[in-house]
Amino acid sequence: MIKKNFNLDKRLSKDTVYICDLPLSKLLLMNDSNYPWFIVVPRIEEISEIFQLSKNDQTQLNLEVSKLSQLLLGYFDGYKVNIAALGNIVNQLHVHIIIRKETDLSWPNPVWGYAKSVPYSPFEKEKVINDIKSFLGKIVF
Amino acid sequence: MIKKNFNLDKRLSKDTVYICDLPLSKLLLMNDSNYPWFIVVPRIEEISEIFQLSKNDQTQLNLEVSKLSQLLLGYFDGYKVNIAALGNIVNQLHVHIIIRKETDLSWPNPVWGYAKSVPYSPFEKEKVINDIKSFLGKIVF
Repeated sequence: MIKKNFNLDKRLSKDTVYICDLPLSKLLLMNDSNYPWFIVVPRIEEISEIFQLSKNDQTQLNLEVSKLSQLLLGYFDGYKVNIAALGNIVNQLHVHIIIRKETDLSWPNPVWGYAKSVPYSPFEKEKVINDIKSFLGKIVF
Repeated sequence: MIKKNFNLDKRLSKDTVYICDLPLSKLLLMNDSNYPWFIVVPRIEEISEIFQLSKNDQTQLNLEVSKLSQLLLGYFDGYKVNIAALGNIVNQLHVHIIIRKETDLSWPNPVWGYAKSVPYSPFEKEKVINDIKSFLGKIVF
């Protein structure tokens, strides 16, 4: 069951900026301007693995991640999408969607552990969030 | 469309050992005894992103990955599953399923780039493959 007062994990909350709610998940922007890096968090509490979601929620999560990947890859003119549900440090189920370019800092390595994160400036952050919100606002999930 | 004579990418072929075919995908064992590390490859050619699969194939891929994660987590008595579709180096769509333990070499980091891979001995490799085959043989996907 989707929780109305869903509590986002504190570490996720610290490292990201809220963009919007999708039917199942919260969409967050990782506060690291090195890459267009997003986090999708199903608003279901006490879940750490995809297989713990109901079948319907798994299908919806796949739909949201898949549609976002395609849209964001186009929007950011990326080369490859990296999708990952790891959760070794933050236990709350969350899925990374990272738009990769052949010119980015860590290419072709995965992003984790390769480059120090560079937070957005307040101006950039507001711009990215507003641009993505107005872009995604037209899409039905 | 699932290809009968599906060609596995050469790098994937070199780095893994074949276990079995699932309805959509090939299940492979990564030849690295540091972790129980599996690769799932949908038998669809010229696809590098999950969103390029049909809706039905996306659902089936999710089912296979989700069910395998749960089964393998139990079988290997793991602590967390890491699931990832990266593909920066190998373009052919493939999904990593890695069973993580708090005592493994790279914990809590992702496995990529942390520890040199340790190939299975021929004896170990045969044992792992046979054990997993007989374990999965009872499961319907």
